[in-house]
Amino acid sequence: MLVNMREGATQQEIDYVVERVCAAGYQAHLTCGTEKTVVAAVGSGRRNEVEALRAAAGVEDVVAISTPYKLVSRKVHPEDTIVTVGNVQIGGGKLVVVAGPCSVESREQLLSTAEAVKKAGATILRGGAYKPRTSPYEFQGLGEEALELLSEARALTGLPVVTEVMSPQDVEIICEHADMLQVGARNMQNFSLLRALAESNKPVLLKRGPSATIKEWLLAAEYLLAGGNSQVVMCERGIRTFENEMTRNTLDLAAVALIKQISHLPVVADPSHGTGRRDIIPVMSRAAVAAGADGLIIEVHPHPERALSDGPQSLDFAMFDKLMSGLGDRTMSAKA
Amino acid sequence: MLVNMREGATQQEIDYVVERVCAAGYQAHLTCGTEKTVVAAVGSGRRNEVEALRAAAGVEDVVAISTPYKLVSRKVHPEDTIVTVGNVQIGGGKLVVVAGPCSVESREQLLSTAEAVKKAGATILRGGAYKPRTSPYEFQGLGEEALELLSEARALTGLPVVTEVMSPQDVEIICEHADMLQVGARNMQNFSLLRALAESNKPVLLKRGPSATIKEWLLAAEYLLAGGNSQVVMCERGIRTFENEMTRNTLDLAAVALIKQISHLPVVADPSHGTGRRDIIPVMSRAAVAAGADGLIIEVHPHPERALSDGPQSLDFAMFDKLMSGLGDRTMSAKA
Amino acid sequence: MLVNMREGATQQEIDYVVERVCAAGYQAHLTCGTEKTVVAAVGSGRRNEVEALRAAAGVEDVVAISTPYKLVSRKVHPEDTIVTVGNVQIGGGKLVVVAGPCSVESREQLLSTAEAVKKAGATILRGGAYKPRTSPYEFQGLGEEALELLSEARALTGLPVVTEVMSPQDVEIICEHADMLQVGARNMQNFSLLRALAESNKPVLLKRGPSATIKEWLLAAEYLLAGGNSQVVMCERGIRTFENEMTRNTLDLAAVALIKQISHLPVVADPSHGTGRRDIIPVMSRAAVAAGADGLIIEVHPHPERALSDGPQSLDFAMFDKLMSGLGDRTMSAKA
Amino acid sequence: MLVNMREGATQQEIDYVVERVCAAGYQAHLTCGTEKTVVAAVGSGRRNEVEALRAAAGVEDVVAISTPYKLVSRKVHPEDTIVTVGNVQIGGGKLVVVAGPCSVESREQLLSTAEAVKKAGATILRGGAYKPRTSPYEFQGLGEEALELLSEARALTGLPVVTEVMSPQDVEIICEHADMLQVGARNMQNFSLLRALAESNKPVLLKRGPSATIKEWLLAAEYLLAGGNSQVVMCERGIRTFENEMTRNTLDLAAVALIKQISHLPVVADPSHGTGRRDIIPVMSRAAVAAGADGLIIEVHPHPERALSDGPQSLDFAMFDKLMSGLGDRTMSAKA
Repeated sequence: MLVNMREGATQQEIDYVVERVCAAGYQAHLTCGTEKTVVAAVGSGRRNEVEALRAAAGVEDVVAISTPYKLVSRKVHPEDTIVTVGNVQIGGGKLVVVAGPCSVESREQLLSTAEAVKKAGATILRGGAYKPRTSPYEFQGLGEEALELLSEARALTGLPVVTEVMSPQDVEIICEHADMLQVGARNMQNFSLLRALAESNKPVLLKRGPSATIKEWLLAAEYLLAGGNSQVVMCERGIRTFENEMTRNTLDLAAVALIKQISHLPVVADPSHGTGRRDIIPVMSRAAVAAGADGLIIEVHPHPERALSDGPQSLDFAMFDKLMSGLGDRTMSAKA
Repeated sequence: MLVNMREGATQQEIDYVVERVCAAGYQAHLTCGTEKTVVAAVGSGRRNEVEALRAAAGVEDVVAISTPYKLVSRKVHPEDTIVTVGNVQIGGGKLVVVAGPCSVESREQLLSTAEAVKKAGATILRGGAYKPRTSPYEFQGLGEEALELLSEARALTGLPVVTEVMSPQDVEIICEHADMLQVGARNMQNFSLLRALAESNKPVLLKRGPSATIKEWLLAAEYLLAGGNSQVVMCERGIRTFENEMTRNTLDLAAVALIKQISHLPVVADPSHGTGRRDIIPVMSRAAVAAGADGLIIEVHPHPERALSDGPQSLDFAMFDKLMSGLGDRTMSAKA
Repeated sequence: MLVNMREGATQQEIDYVVERVCAAGYQAHLTCGTEKTVVAAVGSGRRNEVEALRAAAGVEDVVAISTPYKLVSRKVHPEDTIVTVGNVQIGGGKLVVVAGPCSVESREQLLSTAEAVKKAGATILRGGAYKPRTSPYEFQGLGEEALELLSEARALTGLPVVTEVMSPQDVEIICEHADMLQVGARNMQNFSLLRALAESNKPVLLKRGPSATIKEWLLAAEYLLAGGNSQVVMCERGIRTFENEMTRNTLDLAAVALIKQISHLPVVADPSHGTGRRDIIPVMSRAAVAAGADGLIIEVHPHPERALSDGPQSLDFAMFDKLMSGLGDRTMSAKA
Repeated sequence: MLVNMREGATQQEIDYVVERVCAAGYQAHLTCGTEKTVVAAVGSGRRNEVEALRAAAGVEDVVAISTPYKLVSRKVHPEDTIVTVGNVQIGGGKLVVVAGPCSVESREQLLSTAEAVKKAGATILRGGAYKPRTSPYEFQGLGEEALELLSEARALTGLPVVTEVMSPQDVEIICEHADMLQVGARNMQNFSLLRALAESNKPVLLKRGPSATIKEWLLAAEYLLAGGNSQVVMCERGIRTFENEMTRNTLDLAAVALIKQISHLPVVADPSHGTGRRDIIPVMSRAAVAAGADGLIIEVHPHPERALSDGPQSLDFAMFDKLMSGLGDRTMSAKA
């Protein structure tokens, strides 16, 4: 770590920093510029104690030279991780398409969608049972009833199932019904939930928070790996920016490219939430694949104009079928 | 609600919308412009069914005319709500200062801070027991041990205590030790946690999420009130913007002014997190009070340069004392 | 236009709005909801006079039903516009690659780059003569000397040339040397410059401002078209968001997809500025093409580690050659 | 400067950096950590040549230790600068209020406003002659006619006048009529304009760009000072963030506090643009003063509901009078 002293820091302030760096187990190396001095903490020691010097007199900043994440990094694990969801592998070279309704609304809605998306080539079924909604007056999901319908849809189609978990208390029951657990964007830094999922034995789909940096997103995944669960798929779903009139979020495809480079974990893109508008979901799906995504997650509904949530970004069956046709050969298919 | 049809929407598409609006229990009024048609849903009906029309053919947008929040609004409750924390009233006209360390680190650190902030005029003690940290390798808080130290600090000083709760499972034990429960910025839309707190009988300090709009923040509070807990204090702690080099967050004081106008709930400002830098915390505290804040929450540490978290934004005792002196007469004081 | 009255607006306030709407030449249609009233201005009248009602007593908002841009829209001009730069057509189906150094630094640097990018398949040469730099102490460009070098590079390679114009006063001299004039991101809303370019007879490359909405960007283009110049190419170069550590800007590829849908103007993407990092420029180039871009603009330098500006996002010749090979068959090539 | 090498950088890459640092006139000091090496450039040399190493093989980043701005800094000029506009001093301890209409619309509108704001205590008159408008179809200002009306208003009231300049070509004529020239937010980085203003002998009001960092804003001012004009007043007018529904911009009052600390230049706040809503302009004016602003700039119109621009954020005479009464004793007044 580097402790950058302020311009005009006194010798006493510098001495104090050097002493603290040594007390933390490091060697201290000084670099004296014309304006400022830098104290480098070399070797290995107690990082926290040096970071705390940010608040010491005469210190401008403490800069880490090493990256804060470890287990998610390719430095530790150079080969691609393959995450197995039921009989489907994410990250193994084939493009995986996860599809289904935003919310499970009824038996008929779910089963018809499951069959339609399977027929079109999707290999994992999505569907919300517990819904995080901005307003308490909006539809909150069917809960356990939805979980049972998801189990039924899997039995019918053979598609493994992913659904969102909102609370540590729900992990157990959801694990009984789902093949993969989704951490929603608003819960990306719900660390109690991450810790509970780290202890489960199910793969996790970790959505990026709407205002999470790439580094924070990787560190959220690090909570899962450090806790013992390495079956993690990253999901870019758009970030919140000033452009929120024409698109609901800004889909950050450079984040997809960067995660593939920095980390061994698979990445999927969610153009449904990432754009919020049906008309550009197919073209943005192709762009996401070009950016390196291992998969896509797409909202599909038999009648988007009757959906209880996310209708404007849901495709109907015909639209989804057309999207799948446009994705080309790399797509893993449940059709065959 | 208004259903704005696209330019060039067909008569059939318009007819479908009118039919659905009526089926949802509303009357439908048409306005035909030179370019576009608007279908107004008048009266009262099932709002969700009209909102779903966003996804119908020929529809550009569905716009709500009424506000989505109810119970937090002055329309429903015109008088200021006063929240009582131990023997302290927030929102009753006196400025309330909440102060203490970011994290409880040791008995000595907490008790000395509690005494110092009380002496300087603070009336509520803050201190983190369970810490939401970006990295799993950072200090995560002392947990239950910290809760007991907080109880001890209260016994010693008479100051009521506020501390953060991160999970529904922890609500019960924290309620045994704390007088007020804080929802951290990253958990503002942790709806499972909000529901659990709605059922507790403790006042809640609800921090604004780093990328939450004012409307979303009010709706998070609406979860608490709709669930039965009206003892809610809103806390503006800065939003995440492109300016993150000179200040950690952007303290949005217009949000303080607006919440005071829209809602009856008390508002406090957190210039410690809101700016991330010690040198401007006193001046921004005064600005927050001028913007209408009912209180302030300030991080104080006996030795900021040894703090395990948030050192650069923590004041030492002398700095805090000076800040308090600069706040003027309106401050409620525990000194007397 | 719709004038949304506030809840509780008085009859007198509503009457005043109706009167003003009529005085502006429109018919007024009223919709009375349970909470609020909406006054619709129907027909054609003086838009400004109705917009001014935003400030009238009892008015909550005035919402335009029609889009604010006209000439750039496909509604007015459904077919794709093809912009001709020297002998190169942008928007005609072939992918056009514009390449060259950020700044023209020397004769040798420019000519060697021009030859290298031509050999690799680029068809337009870029190079900055007048540089907008954040600090007055940074390299400001060679000015007129650079313009002459660009002319020489064109003579040598046959590649048409695009360069940035920063001031209305420079339009004339730049037109003598360049085939296309670039409006930089920071000047997107420099309306004096847009007006001067509208009167020139040269094609314009209009970069999106770092905090410009898609609507504002289209309206900047509207200034050019309304002023008489329809040879406009839109350039997405990334927007400024909270994520500015891992990437310099956030490349908004949904904006590329949307502009193609809304407007007839060609769109190119600038992954060099859009990401700020060399390592993901090739993959993001492919993603931009998948999103519908008609072309790419790429910074290339013989020795990026000696560049006077933008080195970290500049490709050397070998990297650029590899990028071109990865773009596939649709690329227009100057090789043949 | 510090050249941070990547983890795994080769000895050859490090040697190359050391050689280049020395060739640029610096001494090179190496710090070898467990993971990474840092090469410090010590002494004084050619900064650009070291910065270019960002693009060299094995280099992760180049970090400046010294601040990029000089002349605007208190390090160079510790005392407050006082800017004189006509007979008014900004930065001398008294609070200065600049007021007037967004646009000059007519003789009667301007003169009545000038008299009203003077009577209420404003000491400088504002009024737009050349208006930067998002759409080419919006009112663009009365131009030269407005300048003459501003001169007439000054003659009538004695108030000095500030108006916006949009182009280097207009500097001369505006200097004939105005006492201070405003650089609008969208032109903050219009460097041609800044250079032209640096050569004029008039004070400049430099608005912060909607997505400009504090550092970029200071560097824009540095263009003026480095070019010879030190009569510069900084104006915080809100930044563009995701919160753009409830407020037009986010007024960043921490920026006011920071500029006062870093720089000797006076700062004024613009709560009219900074919030976009009349109802909170008075309270945010008081907050800005508490944050350390030397002045305020407020839009006032005789009939906001008939204004050709910015009506919703304009105060009428009675509202402005009330705002002035609420500002307290420090206000400089033209009343006496």
